[in-house]
Amino acid sequence: MEEETLAFLRECGLSIDKVNPRQYIAQIPEIPNLEVWFQRSADVVRKVRDGDIDLGVVGFDAVAEYRGPTDSVVIIHEALGYGYCRLAVAVPEMWVNVNSIADLADLAAGREADRPLRVVSKFQRQAAAFLDRCHVQPYHLLHADGALEAAPQMGTADIIVDLISSGVTLRENRLKEIAGGLLFDSQAVLIGNRTALTTRPDVLVVTREILERTEAHLRACEHYTIIANMRGDSPTQVAQKVFGQSELGGLQGPTISPVYLRETTDTSWYAITIVVRKDRLHQAVAQLRAIGGSGVLVLPTIYIFDEEPFRWHKLLTALGVGSKK
Amino acid sequence: MEEETLAFLRECGLSIDKVNPRQYIAQIPEIPNLEVWFQRSADVVRKVRDGDIDLGVVGFDAVAEYRGPTDSVVIIHEALGYGYCRLAVAVPEMWVNVNSIADLADLAAGREADRPLRVVSKFQRQAAAFLDRCHVQPYHLLHADGALEAAPQMGTADIIVDLISSGVTLRENRLKEIAGGLLFDSQAVLIGNRTALTTRPDVLVVTREILERTEAHLRACEHYTIIANMRGDSPTQVAQKVFGQSELGGLQGPTISPVYLRETTDTSWYAITIVVRKDRLHQAVAQLRAIGGSGVLVLPTIYIFDEEPFRWHKLLTALGVGSKK
Amino acid sequence: MEEETLAFLRECGLSIDKVNPRQYIAQIPEIPNLEVWFQRSADVVRKVRDGDIDLGVVGFDAVAEYRGPTDSVVIIHEALGYGYCRLAVAVPEMWVNVNSIADLADLAAGREADRPLRVVSKFQRQAAAFLDRCHVQPYHLLHADGALEAAPQMGTADIIVDLISSGVTLRENRLKEIAGGLLFDSQAVLIGNRTALTTRPDVLVVTREILERTEAHLRACEHYTIIANMRGDSPTQVAQKVFGQSELGGLQGPTISPVYLRETTDTSWYAITIVVRKDRLHQAVAQLRAIGGSGVLVLPTIYIFDEEPFRWHKLLTALGVGSKK
Amino acid sequence: MEEETLAFLRECGLSIDKVNPRQYIAQIPEIPNLEVWFQRSADVVRKVRDGDIDLGVVGFDAVAEYRGPTDSVVIIHEALGYGYCRLAVAVPEMWVNVNSIADLADLAAGREADRPLRVVSKFQRQAAAFLDRCHVQPYHLLHADGALEAAPQMGTADIIVDLISSGVTLRENRLKEIAGGLLFDSQAVLIGNRTALTTRPDVLVVTREILERTEAHLRACEHYTIIANMRGDSPTQVAQKVFGQSELGGLQGPTISPVYLRETTDTSWYAITIVVRKDRLHQAVAQLRAIGGSGVLVLPTIYIFDEEPFRWHKLLTALGVGSKK
Amino acid sequence: MEEETLAFLRECGLSIDKVNPRQYIAQIPEIPNLEVWFQRSADVVRKVRDGDIDLGVVGFDAVAEYRGPTDSVVIIHEALGYGYCRLAVAVPEMWVNVNSIADLADLAAGREADRPLRVVSKFQRQAAAFLDRCHVQPYHLLHADGALEAAPQMGTADIIVDLISSGVTLRENRLKEIAGGLLFDSQAVLIGNRTALTTRPDVLVVTREILERTEAHLRACEHYTIIANMRGDSPTQVAQKVFGQSELGGLQGPTISPVYLRETTDTSWYAITIVVRKDRLHQAVAQLRAIGGSGVLVLPTIYIFDEEPFRWHKLLTALGVGSKK
Amino acid sequence: MEEETLAFLRECGLSIDKVNPRQYIAQIPEIPNLEVWFQRSADVVRKVRDGDIDLGVVGFDAVAEYRGPTDSVVIIHEALGYGYCRLAVAVPEMWVNVNSIADLADLAAGREADRPLRVVSKFQRQAAAFLDRCHVQPYHLLHADGALEAAPQMGTADIIVDLISSGVTLRENRLKEIAGGLLFDSQAVLIGNRTALTTRPDVLVVTREILERTEAHLRACEHYTIIANMRGDSPTQVAQKVFGQSELGGLQGPTISPVYLRETTDTSWYAITIVVRKDRLHQAVAQLRAIGGSGVLVLPTIYIFDEEPFRWHKLLTALGVGSKK
Repeated sequence: MEEETLAFLRECGLSIDKVNPRQYIAQIPEIPNLEVWFQRSADVVRKVRDGDIDLGVVGFDAVAEYRGPTDSVVIIHEALGYGYCRLAVAVPEMWVNVNSIADLADLAAGREADRPLRVVSKFQRQAAAFLDRCHVQPYHLLHADGALEAAPQMGTADIIVDLISSGVTLRENRLKEIAGGLLFDSQAVLIGNRTALTTRPDVLVVTREILERTEAHLRACEHYTIIANMRGDSPTQVAQKVFGQSELGGLQGPTISPVYLRETTDTSWYAITIVVRKDRLHQAVAQLRAIGGSGVLVLPTIYIFDEEPFRWHKLLTALGVGSKK
Repeated sequence: MEEETLAFLRECGLSIDKVNPRQYIAQIPEIPNLEVWFQRSADVVRKVRDGDIDLGVVGFDAVAEYRGPTDSVVIIHEALGYGYCRLAVAVPEMWVNVNSIADLADLAAGREADRPLRVVSKFQRQAAAFLDRCHVQPYHLLHADGALEAAPQMGTADIIVDLISSGVTLRENRLKEIAGGLLFDSQAVLIGNRTALTTRPDVLVVTREILERTEAHLRACEHYTIIANMRGDSPTQVAQKVFGQSELGGLQGPTISPVYLRETTDTSWYAITIVVRKDRLHQAVAQLRAIGGSGVLVLPTIYIFDEEPFRWHKLLTALGVGSKK
Repeated sequence: MEEETLAFLRECGLSIDKVNPRQYIAQIPEIPNLEVWFQRSADVVRKVRDGDIDLGVVGFDAVAEYRGPTDSVVIIHEALGYGYCRLAVAVPEMWVNVNSIADLADLAAGREADRPLRVVSKFQRQAAAFLDRCHVQPYHLLHADGALEAAPQMGTADIIVDLISSGVTLRENRLKEIAGGLLFDSQAVLIGNRTALTTRPDVLVVTREILERTEAHLRACEHYTIIANMRGDSPTQVAQKVFGQSELGGLQGPTISPVYLRETTDTSWYAITIVVRKDRLHQAVAQLRAIGGSGVLVLPTIYIFDEEPFRWHKLLTALGVGSKK
Repeated sequence: MEEETLAFLRECGLSIDKVNPRQYIAQIPEIPNLEVWFQRSADVVRKVRDGDIDLGVVGFDAVAEYRGPTDSVVIIHEALGYGYCRLAVAVPEMWVNVNSIADLADLAAGREADRPLRVVSKFQRQAAAFLDRCHVQPYHLLHADGALEAAPQMGTADIIVDLISSGVTLRENRLKEIAGGLLFDSQAVLIGNRTALTTRPDVLVVTREILERTEAHLRACEHYTIIANMRGDSPTQVAQKVFGQSELGGLQGPTISPVYLRETTDTSWYAITIVVRKDRLHQAVAQLRAIGGSGVLVLPTIYIFDEEPFRWHKLLTALGVGSKK
Repeated sequence: MEEETLAFLRECGLSIDKVNPRQYIAQIPEIPNLEVWFQRSADVVRKVRDGDIDLGVVGFDAVAEYRGPTDSVVIIHEALGYGYCRLAVAVPEMWVNVNSIADLADLAAGREADRPLRVVSKFQRQAAAFLDRCHVQPYHLLHADGALEAAPQMGTADIIVDLISSGVTLRENRLKEIAGGLLFDSQAVLIGNRTALTTRPDVLVVTREILERTEAHLRACEHYTIIANMRGDSPTQVAQKVFGQSELGGLQGPTISPVYLRETTDTSWYAITIVVRKDRLHQAVAQLRAIGGSGVLVLPTIYIFDEEPFRWHKLLTALGVGSKK
Repeated sequence: MEEETLAFLRECGLSIDKVNPRQYIAQIPEIPNLEVWFQRSADVVRKVRDGDIDLGVVGFDAVAEYRGPTDSVVIIHEALGYGYCRLAVAVPEMWVNVNSIADLADLAAGREADRPLRVVSKFQRQAAAFLDRCHVQPYHLLHADGALEAAPQMGTADIIVDLISSGVTLRENRLKEIAGGLLFDSQAVLIGNRTALTTRPDVLVVTREILERTEAHLRACEHYTIIANMRGDSPTQVAQKVFGQSELGGLQGPTISPVYLRETTDTSWYAITIVVRKDRLHQAVAQLRAIGGSGVLVLPTIYIFDEEPFRWHKLLTALGVGSKK
């Protein structure tokens, strides 16, 4: 996930100067007094948990498995928008009668006591908790470091509990997911050490700046800035026309400026500036046309800062400290 | 052309989630109910022609060669702006007396009947039609699958009719183009199956959305949005100054907003927003300066939507159906 | 530096159509009558000096070493913002008592006459001039074409004078920099031939266009365009609030347009457009919030053209010609 | 297959000096007056057929499809030992009742006349001939240039007739082979033009040299030269022991030389040299030990020349000419 | 180590047909009924231990760490000649007073009880046992999955116990090895499951075949076959001259055959065939010359089979079974 | 040339353990007390000349240009068999009247004094000496670091004197070689410092070992060891048959051993071992067959050591020292 995280931070305006692929420590010029360490996922969580690192970016799956029983790992941003995968149960395609977790529980229950379901997983804690919760009993949990999707075909396990992204690897190993077999969806998250966040103000300051940039960037990723020309009697009337359309509400009201035409007799044109969701662009353009809009410019947007970072208050509450700037 | 087409669609806001290079079928999340197939050029045209595929993106050269005698392949967008090449005749550099298609016709006519001009081409239909049209007689048309530029040096053909992009390969094989030897210029085009377009409204809806995005993207590729500050007595006077300059016409009149200066006595500044062609940027900036402009911001633009997609009406006419939204 | 220069020119809107990596001559479609040659650094400087090339982009280090004693190489733009490195003295890490150029001079002076300090460098002229200037005497200057950082470990030289970028190679060869040992910092520069610039108006015209685009691009690289909504009694009052904040000064005063809200009773919202430095974004957003701003859009900017290219006047002065357009 | 063919020829002692990947003509220094052309498979067969090329190395599958009805393409060596694949029918995995070519014929026969089995293949001639021979009727034969394994999943064909090497691509596209569905096995073959071989002695000379080297190399690939020490009363007795073992027969009798030991009293040791098949090495060593052998050296062998190239006589017969050197 | 193992087996005449890099199961055509699994090192040892796999090729380091307390993992060949590395303690270069394991024990003993030496290692069992054995007390053992050489510089550990191959990574992280700090040297080994080896004869047969080929190949890697001409009165006298030289002893006595010269009067030449160690080649050639040898041919050797595989008896003894073929 | 030199030394049995591409110093395990340095060609020659290095492997072209006027650089082996190229004059293809060095001298002589022939070369010394020797006058010699083949097309030089390997680059730049324009052919050579060779016996010992291995390897590269069976009345008669054939002379007489056949009545077969040149293999096999040979085994050979390294005596003479072992 290192490549994706470097790209994400760069898009948030935080460039990391890592000149050497074997280098494990780097700087972010935009935020002084910050040292960036490159570690394997499990090590990131362990080190945030133990206080060796203050902040970490890692997949939620690693947080779930390695955060431990204490509350020392705080999730600051739970959805950074990349690194998507899911932890799920997969069984052999050939098991045509096992299509749900209930079917799996029946199958396990029906086996003789000395032949429990053999489950292989890198996520020992999550897998055990999930199987117990779903009453899949009895089972025998095996550990493997490598590509465990091949285990059922090799005959060393019956089913797997593993991370799945596209599902291609599953199909290549003749495995299938089952209904109710999802442990959780995962994506990249920002985590922090509770003690560092509550006792060291400089950590909190940096956290806030990262949170600001992250939220503003992710919001901008979902929106376009639109400038459209529109015929109207007055700014107020143009604004009313805009308010009549569901897709044009924007973050607040539209900005309206006069447009001047070569033919001076016709002055009733206005330029409106609004922000629309990217996935509603087609509908927004249609509605603009419907109320007399034309010449629609769509501009890219790098950040959209809102009043306060939404997750900032959530974080302060979670840390049990009052809001402060 | 696959890489370029994926890049083009991505820039049009249509991202294709193809996770595996050996995968032949993919989806575009922005347009549901659409399946994208990856096929060789000739197969794309054949399948659109036979109705196996509804829409296709392919080089015009393949359309010309494989569309067949019926009108079942409709060209929806004839200039997607990439995949540029040309189909042309090339003869050995050593033929110093053959510099035009007329010279070539003379040479062919002067050869003995049992030694006709040997022409090699992957474009059998186009080559034959062109040579007949230009009275290059007699000739013997040969077929080859591979790199046929080497055929004249190998002695297995006299001339070639082939796609040329940069001309480097021609020169490396000591070939040259001749005057009048151009069959046609080619670039990527969007094609559709006539029956699908006329009988299945959902195909027409998707076609329109793709056409909207394509036209708006290609228009944006050729323009910049400009914000400039300009001194003036009134918005009207500023507008008049702008209208006096040839490069600043924009798509419609300029948007004009007041600018406030620190020194309150000087309030006669306005910000104008216009759209200029990229290849006239230098001239536009010069004209802005000439009429008192300064502080010119040039912004990138992702889409410029006009009133209706220009090619939409053309397409409806071509299909023989009345305009409908 | 070829890759970086191609990228830089592309970002300045000057795309070079080099189809073949072994090709040494190319065109820039945006500027006709211009031929681009790809040459090694030393050759670029030599050819600009001798008038074989009119303009060149090259590292300052090569200019310093190869420009020669005449003033025929004119530096047109001295800071293109990439290709950063520095020419500096490096000594073995083991020389724990040598930490400054003065220490080095002492060490050299203390050696017997027949065992002068052996200095290896690709920059013969710069190294000699610097060592003389710093009274490091006596020394013996050696020439090497290859990776000379290894020379002290191999025992063929005592110290090196070489280009340093990240410092990783130095450390791997157990060398260190010393205080006062910096000859100069270097980055990519734009140079021209004095005779061509003073006698051939077309060269001056192209130079000005490149300078315009370069400055406008580099200025844009350092700024964001910001649109923010702000509550206020009147445009004038909003402008005053903006003027009260140190980070919001922008290039000139803010552009202010009314914003219309769904609730017609509340009309006291305005959209302000300003330009802020990228490295002050965080502070600017904070100040905007402090004076009632919200919904801050941050837009990318491609060029910011100022009244006249700053370096244009400098160049005309350096060439001894009056200003002309 | 270009890479493999270059490697094969190199192992046969025929190195091709192709310095440039885009180069289509090269030389073999070991055989003067020989020009090597690099062409696509279909073009190789076409050009040998038409006499543009005298000799060709190509997959048998291309020969079968493109050799045409005349006997102008002569197969000189039918098994060069690489480029293995097979041309076979593949049907969807889901067709659980179709497991043989007879099943397929039943299925085709049972379909309505207007819905014939749609078969897609690059091997139009072979596919049609095979389906007719196997009474699979009616069918509709489609042409495709690209990866046609996806056609059944796309719904544009029912079954495919295609080259299969490892079978991985088949499985990824959920296809399976069926009993009796093999058209032929294919590997690289050496072909020649009949007219060139019968009328131009120099072509025959080169053909013989290539055939010599090819056969001697392929024979060497399958054998090891073995030197073993063996106790015995006399060379004759040692030879008799060797003849008593099935794996030690070699090409002819063993070579036997005396071995001298440090202890002069014991002189009854002999070294035997034999040639054994690689795939019988284990058994041969066991038999050697059984008859008192030890210290078995296994040497690589580059060529094993037999009396005359086996295929040389076959070729002369096929060409209808008497044997000549 | 997968690449090296595939290469090693190929050189032993055991080629694995793994067509797909994502494939985990393959075959060795030379040994039927054998399935090859590709697994991470730790999984190989675990599965051999648990009987999921019968035989495994893996680094000795993994065997040491994961074989567990029982004797179910049997080492069949302890030195396959590749995958060399060593498990050792490394401390910061800056610890100028810590140069031996005794120094390290002193340093640990001298620290306060609440600040034990922090040791990070992937080899938890080996590290703990070694530190205890060397009386390095107290220490705190940390676990990490990733590149732990950076831990001391990051401040999360004091020293490391890790695999070292070239030592470059150590130096880059400013670490050094210390006297007495070596836990063990490691290379690739062949292991087997005791139960499978003692109860399933087919496993033993395959093991023997692999052992034969492995030993014969490794012995051949260290020797050349030499044929030299030598003047002498009789074969016996030539043999005596050979016996007089220390480097020419070979595996047994030399093979001696007569050499015939063009000048029939001089018949006193013999060719001797001997086997010499590669690293003594220079000396052997010098001794051959000293006793009248000339025209020394050095031939490569693929296998040298001795009477019985040396490790075969060792293995049978270790398994507690009598010798059998 | 680094890659080729490493491969060459490896084939000579001298493996260099260079683990890191940025590493400049390595060891050869087979020869202790030897340090291998990786340097640019010019630096290798300079350092051997100055005594910084004792021995060097480098292209002859660099030796010619950089060895200087003294005799301190001794060429120990002048033909290592790789790195082939030639230093030659090349002129524009368009100069149809310039086809020899005499034509070039005429052309230079015919130009006006102020427009001398502009020659660009990296080989300043060689180029000047050659042009003077060939009476090409007047000329102006230019220096360039980079790809100077483009200089004539750019107009900055008229002709070039440069290294040519395949000639492809020349043709791409529309240049041609001319008769008499060859300065010299070049390949890799082994050089040494005269003082080191004459005063330090250990250098001479290592030189001899390298020379032995190099000569023996290069001799082996050109020969095959052949074992053939041959019918004959006696070894002497077989030998006579062999001596009657021109290609079978070998290095000395053939080794002849009896072959034993299954049918004991027929004992008149012998195995002969000879060494033949690779490029005469075809003829040798034909001659063997002509005298009753069959079953010809061709074995690879790694080294062929002759009585003494041929160049060893040459070297001792060049150094002015008597022969010693």
